[in-house]
Amino acid sequence: MKPWKTNIRRVTPYVPGEQPKGEHLIKLNTNENPYPPSPFVKKAMDEMDYGLFRKYPDPASSVLTEALCEYYQIGEDEIFVGVGSDDVIAMAFLTFFNSQKPVLFPDVTYSFYEVWAKLFQIPYITPALDEDFLIKKEDYYRENGGIIFPNPNAPTGVLMPLSEVEDIIAHNQESVVIVDEAYIDFGGVSAAGLIKKYENLLVVQTFSKSRSMAGMRIGYAMGNRDLIRALNDVKYSYNSYTMNMPSQILGAAAVKDDRYFKETLDKIITTRERAKERLSRLGFKFPDSMANFIFASHKEKSAEEIYLALKENQIFVRYFKQPRLDSYLRITIGTDEEMRQLYDFLEEFLS
Amino acid sequence: MKPWKTNIRRVTPYVPGEQPKGEHLIKLNTNENPYPPSPFVKKAMDEMDYGLFRKYPDPASSVLTEALCEYYQIGEDEIFVGVGSDDVIAMAFLTFFNSQKPVLFPDVTYSFYEVWAKLFQIPYITPALDEDFLIKKEDYYRENGGIIFPNPNAPTGVLMPLSEVEDIIAHNQESVVIVDEAYIDFGGVSAAGLIKKYENLLVVQTFSKSRSMAGMRIGYAMGNRDLIRALNDVKYSYNSYTMNMPSQILGAAAVKDDRYFKETLDKIITTRERAKERLSRLGFKFPDSMANFIFASHKEKSAEEIYLALKENQIFVRYFKQPRLDSYLRITIGTDEEMRQLYDFLEEFLS
Repeated sequence: MKPWKTNIRRVTPYVPGEQPKGEHLIKLNTNENPYPPSPFVKKAMDEMDYGLFRKYPDPASSVLTEALCEYYQIGEDEIFVGVGSDDVIAMAFLTFFNSQKPVLFPDVTYSFYEVWAKLFQIPYITPALDEDFLIKKEDYYRENGGIIFPNPNAPTGVLMPLSEVEDIIAHNQESVVIVDEAYIDFGGVSAAGLIKKYENLLVVQTFSKSRSMAGMRIGYAMGNRDLIRALNDVKYSYNSYTMNMPSQILGAAAVKDDRYFKETLDKIITTRERAKERLSRLGFKFPDSMANFIFASHKEKSAEEIYLALKENQIFVRYFKQPRLDSYLRITIGTDEEMRQLYDFLEEFLS
Repeated sequence: MKPWKTNIRRVTPYVPGEQPKGEHLIKLNTNENPYPPSPFVKKAMDEMDYGLFRKYPDPASSVLTEALCEYYQIGEDEIFVGVGSDDVIAMAFLTFFNSQKPVLFPDVTYSFYEVWAKLFQIPYITPALDEDFLIKKEDYYRENGGIIFPNPNAPTGVLMPLSEVEDIIAHNQESVVIVDEAYIDFGGVSAAGLIKKYENLLVVQTFSKSRSMAGMRIGYAMGNRDLIRALNDVKYSYNSYTMNMPSQILGAAAVKDDRYFKETLDKIITTRERAKERLSRLGFKFPDSMANFIFASHKEKSAEEIYLALKENQIFVRYFKQPRLDSYLRITIGTDEEMRQLYDFLEEFLS
């Protein structure tokens, strides 16, 4: 092997989920929002001056952080924005998980936590979810170098009540606790209200799901200003200009349209609740989901078989071929019409 | 100190350059292009469907990489795109500079190289430029864990002839050599033509200067497909969806307007050559610049004094208050009208 090749960092390359292309397919595999972003986004885009692109963007993304502070009623030193919540969480791993003690996160959870821990050589332990896919909060009452979990959890959709989230934070005031709320807007109560009470709490959210802007790459973290300052210091030391102008401008516009946001959420929640009934009647079982997807297993047919049959018919859902998960399908909540086509197919296929 | 605070990563926070706001100021301090992006960018923006933003962007940024491959006549496995060249170069440090041997870069150069080396705990040595701010290629004929230098160099603007760049690459076929060509389009010859000859060569360019799109955050690297695959593996292992949809779509549009690109470059080069004459007559001396800025020192007045007087008059240039650089000003080439106002002020101030 060439000497320069021996110095290349070895990683396990992540294979992003399928991004099938075509006109008539139904894409229920990546938890995207089935509705477009707010019309405020369109208006802001129409008014955006392309001539400004010649300049560097505001490194502090002020127009966006101001909109978020106004929305959440927090201070500008209590928010950090990044290029998607993946960027925000990776930066948080790098910034906060620097002890020799293991970081804790569930065994069944967002797969990137393990990837970042390995990349940054952070030791970690993954307490197992119970047989109902619930996080056992007592597993997190032990010495650690930091804690992270999603709420609702992924890919299960299970929501932990805020009181239990608070128990975990309260038991771990010597560590930074990160609550990853990518799916919180679909029915949960955010821990963001606790950031003034617990200075070790970081709450991460995203525009990719509830705000229909996965294509724009916008994530953010809320927390005590010491945490936020530390995140900004690491960010500025690495790459000052990360969020481009359109994300800043269009992101701010989206936040200002709370009515559209709530209406869209209501539609998705209504469709999800209906999906629970329909899928039950079709013979599926699943933990109760408070996210924009349902993690479902069929009583008779194998998940892989259903996955392949759906795919054959241009309906894409997510199938994880790995222990504990391989009897489930993660089905994103689409529009009513998309879901109707899903039920129609399943009804015929499963009968 | 709270226990969680002791685990926070300590960094030297970078302070981004001044981004003064106002209508009548003249901003010659961050090497932005004084002309707007191509009208093709405006057209693509007008045609962009905001409804698509609900979906994740293409993780491979294919529309953009295809446009770049077409332009540079290289294969799609020979290009990597990132969120500005800072993102690309930081990823390259993380990917390629993994030996215990020191990485080499000039003592006077782009300040982020040292920042990334420290952040990723990469040992480094910084050979000094000679008294005329030239890189001495022989300094790079020694054992090392990798090499990086900008061509033209920053903040000097000095271009190294391609033959000397090739000498450095040829002498270091056991290391990865990165040529950072942020300013190459303003009069230099790119090393990109050498990527098929040297499999250890990575050439990095950006849309922020010559393509007037600093606000969009687009950078790219060209190199042997083994290098590109390694970069993509690290990127995908860290954050799969980094470049948002507008950057992919508008970046591709910009690349397709070669005529506008060349015209804009010609204007800036003409203005720069005139600036060399004018600044000489005003008593400045400077290394010959082939970038979109001039690194100039005045025979009599101190750089700091001139910097402050200009600032007072709403003309912003860059002043580095540090050894070896503090008798120089880095003046970005603006429009002819902006430069005229600069000369007018200097003429009066220096007389």
